[in-house]
Amino acid sequence: MTVPRDVLVVNPNTTASMTDRIGAAARAAAAPTTRVLAVNPSMGPASIEGYYDEALAVPGLLDTIIRHERAARDQGGALAGIVIACFDDVGLDAARCVADAPVVGICEAAMQTAGLLGGSMGVVTTLNRSVPALERLAQRYGVADRCTVRAAEVPVLALEDPASGALDRMRAVIARLLDEDGAECIVLGCAGMADLARSLRQEFGVPVVDGVSAAVTLVEGLATLGLRTSKRGGYAAPLPKAYTGVLAGFAP
Amino acid sequence: MTVPRDVLVVNPNTTASMTDRIGAAARAAAAPTTRVLAVNPSMGPASIEGYYDEALAVPGLLDTIIRHERAARDQGGALAGIVIACFDDVGLDAARCVADAPVVGICEAAMQTAGLLGGSMGVVTTLNRSVPALERLAQRYGVADRCTVRAAEVPVLALEDPASGALDRMRAVIARLLDEDGAECIVLGCAGMADLARSLRQEFGVPVVDGVSAAVTLVEGLATLGLRTSKRGGYAAPLPKAYTGVLAGFAP
Amino acid sequence: MTVPRDVLVVNPNTTASMTDRIGAAARAAAAPTTRVLAVNPSMGPASIEGYYDEALAVPGLLDTIIRHERAARDQGGALAGIVIACFDDVGLDAARCVADAPVVGICEAAMQTAGLLGGSMGVVTTLNRSVPALERLAQRYGVADRCTVRAAEVPVLALEDPASGALDRMRAVIARLLDEDGAECIVLGCAGMADLARSLRQEFGVPVVDGVSAAVTLVEGLATLGLRTSKRGGYAAPLPKAYTGVLAGFAP
Amino acid sequence: MTVPRDVLVVNPNTTASMTDRIGAAARAAAAPTTRVLAVNPSMGPASIEGYYDEALAVPGLLDTIIRHERAARDQGGALAGIVIACFDDVGLDAARCVADAPVVGICEAAMQTAGLLGGSMGVVTTLNRSVPALERLAQRYGVADRCTVRAAEVPVLALEDPASGALDRMRAVIARLLDEDGAECIVLGCAGMADLARSLRQEFGVPVVDGVSAAVTLVEGLATLGLRTSKRGGYAAPLPKAYTGVLAGFAP
Amino acid sequence: MTVPRDVLVVNPNTTASMTDRIGAAARAAAAPTTRVLAVNPSMGPASIEGYYDEALAVPGLLDTIIRHERAARDQGGALAGIVIACFDDVGLDAARCVADAPVVGICEAAMQTAGLLGGSMGVVTTLNRSVPALERLAQRYGVADRCTVRAAEVPVLALEDPASGALDRMRAVIARLLDEDGAECIVLGCAGMADLARSLRQEFGVPVVDGVSAAVTLVEGLATLGLRTSKRGGYAAPLPKAYTGVLAGFAP
Amino acid sequence: MTVPRDVLVVNPNTTASMTDRIGAAARAAAAPTTRVLAVNPSMGPASIEGYYDEALAVPGLLDTIIRHERAARDQGGALAGIVIACFDDVGLDAARCVADAPVVGICEAAMQTAGLLGGSMGVVTTLNRSVPALERLAQRYGVADRCTVRAAEVPVLALEDPASGALDRMRAVIARLLDEDGAECIVLGCAGMADLARSLRQEFGVPVVDGVSAAVTLVEGLATLGLRTSKRGGYAAPLPKAYTGVLAGFAP
Repeated sequence: MTVPRDVLVVNPNTTASMTDRIGAAARAAAAPTTRVLAVNPSMGPASIEGYYDEALAVPGLLDTIIRHERAARDQGGALAGIVIACFDDVGLDAARCVADAPVVGICEAAMQTAGLLGGSMGVVTTLNRSVPALERLAQRYGVADRCTVRAAEVPVLALEDPASGALDRMRAVIARLLDEDGAECIVLGCAGMADLARSLRQEFGVPVVDGVSAAVTLVEGLATLGLRTSKRGGYAAPLPKAYTGVLAGFAP
Repeated sequence: MTVPRDVLVVNPNTTASMTDRIGAAARAAAAPTTRVLAVNPSMGPASIEGYYDEALAVPGLLDTIIRHERAARDQGGALAGIVIACFDDVGLDAARCVADAPVVGICEAAMQTAGLLGGSMGVVTTLNRSVPALERLAQRYGVADRCTVRAAEVPVLALEDPASGALDRMRAVIARLLDEDGAECIVLGCAGMADLARSLRQEFGVPVVDGVSAAVTLVEGLATLGLRTSKRGGYAAPLPKAYTGVLAGFAP
Repeated sequence: MTVPRDVLVVNPNTTASMTDRIGAAARAAAAPTTRVLAVNPSMGPASIEGYYDEALAVPGLLDTIIRHERAARDQGGALAGIVIACFDDVGLDAARCVADAPVVGICEAAMQTAGLLGGSMGVVTTLNRSVPALERLAQRYGVADRCTVRAAEVPVLALEDPASGALDRMRAVIARLLDEDGAECIVLGCAGMADLARSLRQEFGVPVVDGVSAAVTLVEGLATLGLRTSKRGGYAAPLPKAYTGVLAGFAP
Repeated sequence: MTVPRDVLVVNPNTTASMTDRIGAAARAAAAPTTRVLAVNPSMGPASIEGYYDEALAVPGLLDTIIRHERAARDQGGALAGIVIACFDDVGLDAARCVADAPVVGICEAAMQTAGLLGGSMGVVTTLNRSVPALERLAQRYGVADRCTVRAAEVPVLALEDPASGALDRMRAVIARLLDEDGAECIVLGCAGMADLARSLRQEFGVPVVDGVSAAVTLVEGLATLGLRTSKRGGYAAPLPKAYTGVLAGFAP
Repeated sequence: MTVPRDVLVVNPNTTASMTDRIGAAARAAAAPTTRVLAVNPSMGPASIEGYYDEALAVPGLLDTIIRHERAARDQGGALAGIVIACFDDVGLDAARCVADAPVVGICEAAMQTAGLLGGSMGVVTTLNRSVPALERLAQRYGVADRCTVRAAEVPVLALEDPASGALDRMRAVIARLLDEDGAECIVLGCAGMADLARSLRQEFGVPVVDGVSAAVTLVEGLATLGLRTSKRGGYAAPLPKAYTGVLAGFAP
Repeated sequence: MTVPRDVLVVNPNTTASMTDRIGAAARAAAAPTTRVLAVNPSMGPASIEGYYDEALAVPGLLDTIIRHERAARDQGGALAGIVIACFDDVGLDAARCVADAPVVGICEAAMQTAGLLGGSMGVVTTLNRSVPALERLAQRYGVADRCTVRAAEVPVLALEDPASGALDRMRAVIARLLDEDGAECIVLGCAGMADLARSLRQEFGVPVVDGVSAAVTLVEGLATLGLRTSKRGGYAAPLPKAYTGVLAGFAP
């Protein structure tokens, strides 16, 4: 009866195994009537660790979004929503300009969701180099005065390897966020941590928010409400103009 | 197959006709598997216009939540989530302390949702006296620097009366929020406006967010994610102690 | 010659022994020509520890204020000012709407007073669960960036019991506020601590501010200046409307 | 019985007629047991209009404070409190370092007092060139997000001249602050306006706060509470050292 | 005697005529011993109007920087500094990670420079869609509370065409920033306006800051001081990893 | 060919040996065509440690600026720029009102420069009593949320004495700023530390910014750009009026 809804979940790095785990987390959160399309670009960095990787993940992300929206339109349909599954929320503003469907970033989703559950939150992320970017996002999303960000110093792809000791380092950071920083909730600060939320929640007895699943529920909600990005102001559709070189195909 | 979920939507004033309209808006947004219980307290003010009404709506609100959670428990179940359907988000913190289920306020829900759709938002509310309270909420929810609040100077219950001219005054305020204040989205700043979102969206061509439906999708999302209010810190369960007088029954 | 002025000091919890100590602190600070009426409601919680107690202390507080203002009017007089003697400043906004006399909360008074005495302040409060509420008040009163709040983890009513060890735990917190957090003044974060200000000031050699006495001097000052709450905007008098149930008597 | 208390009110400019009016406002607000010493330096600018006058008013201000504290000490007494009666709060920090008695600025006093009376305030000051300094003070005192500052474009000393039209220009600014900016209280943004508070309050029906009288009540309160500037941190007493030239006498 | 210093000025769009004008502005500001290399990428958008163009200008920008730093190294030298000559400061963080030389954005440079010249500033930019991005930059650079951004609604490339009426629309916006918003300085909010600073300064009698020339002086200063981007934290050099597709060449 | 430019560097304390070291740092940073005039007043405090010294250093500072601008005018020339070489940026606003040339403070210059080099900064200053003043400057200059200030507890003039152990205490503070506070750059928080930047940069491997040299490059840049302080608003030239006493000569 209910028409199935397509939610596109884009892992903006090119590591397919990470896309699979992200997709699994997304599907576990999605409504029965939602079809999750978990994909990653074919161009760009294998993982996103710092501003340089961030910037170069964006063309692949936008290309992926544009292609999938076009494909859906060609079949007479439309995407119901789009999730950007990198905790730096790379390309979020650009994606909102170019996409018809509403777009949610997983950092945005996780911080908003944690804000509904406690007065303060602690974010455990991968590398120290990512902390300033996440603090800037906390500022942007209006939670900076009740959010502490700490890194476990584990590379993104080490999260895939049980032998890496990554989980133990994350545990130590979470304990510190709760005990020293007064965090009331924990936010997992990397898409690659999505599958750890449940067990950490049980271990620490506080809400542990994974951005991938949080973002899926948020875009589903927007779809239900019939709400899409405002095209008035900063997210207006790109103006037609020439693009050149290997990016010529991106011309609006 | 999917177990139905009960979402309690509390209109904290005592006007049943307004509760009906709120319930209709909530049901329109809820998933097929969600049962919406739209209720209002039997004690307290007939409408909430300013801080005094706000304060005295809270006992009825808390009583309603406590009773419904107890009833659900008595039947071996539990509420999946609770929505406070007054745009002042009255009693939100107290409700989070006492409820097992996650609690979302409609101002909080609307401002968060609007923040996903545009860079800036304009809130149209009822009376000038409510503006300072809403500006303080915008601060609390981290959107103050991209949110303008304006009143249409219509009493809450006038929204029930098509002959009151309330809608025209709201239209004028919305136009001003878009043109002068640079708002990219509109937020309806009163639970009694819930049924206007769709038509105003079509008229003005920008997202128009109603907090009731937005809050329903947010608590459904929290329920799906298995997330509940942190009981560590500010939202810890009330300590047992004596309450006296007509409020004796509220003793934790 | 000078007409005596009546200042109403409301302890919003129902513990009379605490009201007595608050009254003593208030009288010690009041001008010779001020009569302090230290009272508490007959309904509500025995102590205020967290948001739930806060919310349910408000009806008793408002009832107390309304009755005393009415009694004064009946005798051809008026209250000169009202102090809300709970450090969470419960019901402050609602009280300002309904009272003729100016109203000051003791957290507000203490933070403002400390702001006149040093560049930064440290607040020692009772329970961890109260910290988020006080941090939000620091934000509201504009001192958040120069204020640290820490809890001694002593229940409010333990302050009445010399054998509870409460004082020693407070001392340890004060030392930490001064040494680690760089506080230049100390604020006592609970009405029940009012009688400790003098001895702690001598012990630590820094200003120690008690909100009860600070608030008494502030409302006396407002009375002297002939200043009362603005009735334009957020503190406009409640609009007439029906209230039902056990709260029917509160109808404006 | 009550020992009279000496409050020093320093007009930091050298215009004696303005000192007289400031003294009158101070005395009208002071308790019967307070002796107001309204004085001005013999060196420095005749009025304070902008940062340059501000800076050069400070030595005279400090000299005045130091002399009066020394004279009081020589007579076995002490000042109970000190008011800096220029709305730019010139020399406030330096005065706090060097004075034994607590020190309050009239902008600080007025903004704090207005904050007790309404959710937002409007400041009417003299010249446009003073607006940035007052906006910075609003930031420092934590009211920036609920304070609008506007100038009437009247020179300070024109306030002494009924024929100058200054009052009418102030009235127009006040009307704009209330109607356009949503101010709920008015603050008089110059010590020379002290005598206008009462009549403007009656005319506009909102609280109108004069900083001179507000500051007198605040320092009286601090004296009553036995509170003085913290000497720990930024307001530590000046270290002994050589001063040379015409300022040699200021050496601590 | 003095070794010439090479400053790379990158116009991140592909319009060579605009690069020429930017280069002229840069050279007019540069020291005699500085060689300005004004360049633009061969891939990407012809102008940058909104977030989408921004995002897709970054690969070309980074490629240009990497190539020029490598070429300088191959010749035994090094760039002294890099200017990103688009007022959205596109790719600034990524450039800081990958470049050896210090990097300055023209919005950053202009806002900092204006902050040295007046208490408040007004930015005149091209299109309304760019306003939210610039307001976010004002926040990031710490001038948001003293900065107003307004658009003249002129497309970027219309600035090249004297017949477009662009200048008159800019003049009207500047007048409004000065008269209504109280701006004390004007900032030109687009690299394409660089050549207008001098004449507008004369016309309006206030400082008019062009970001291109301001940024050139800032990077020259950094070079003189021997200061380069910190590689500790957020701007650490990119970690080695695989990049794929058309972006494979960007692999660190 | 290039006309030499005169930059006035004012050490606002009266210690000539410190002026010499400041002058040396300034000259090392200045362009070959810049003549640095490093001077100090003949009146005022021997060092600036806290708000009292600050305030009384200002007349000498302003006198020095006025005399040198007059002397330059008398010779048919003009100062190109003025640096206030005390890290408290004493008298900066007043100097901007009275000077024709642009004026830069060394704290302002150092914080802005550090902001170009890293996401966060740590300031090492002399005495604890100076920390609140520097934190307030960090707020004013918009870097408060990414700046930590710590004192080494060394008196200003001890920096002149290699046997004082001052350098070791500074080293310990720098290590803490990097390790605990996450600073990415270090700012030297006293003009007397100017000569230590280079060696500390090598020792710690992060940018170490000295305000004196940073300020010299900034005013040179302003001179190159032909930009001077806006005389519209807060920095308008002082109005003519009587000044009396030993300060009579300061009358505008």
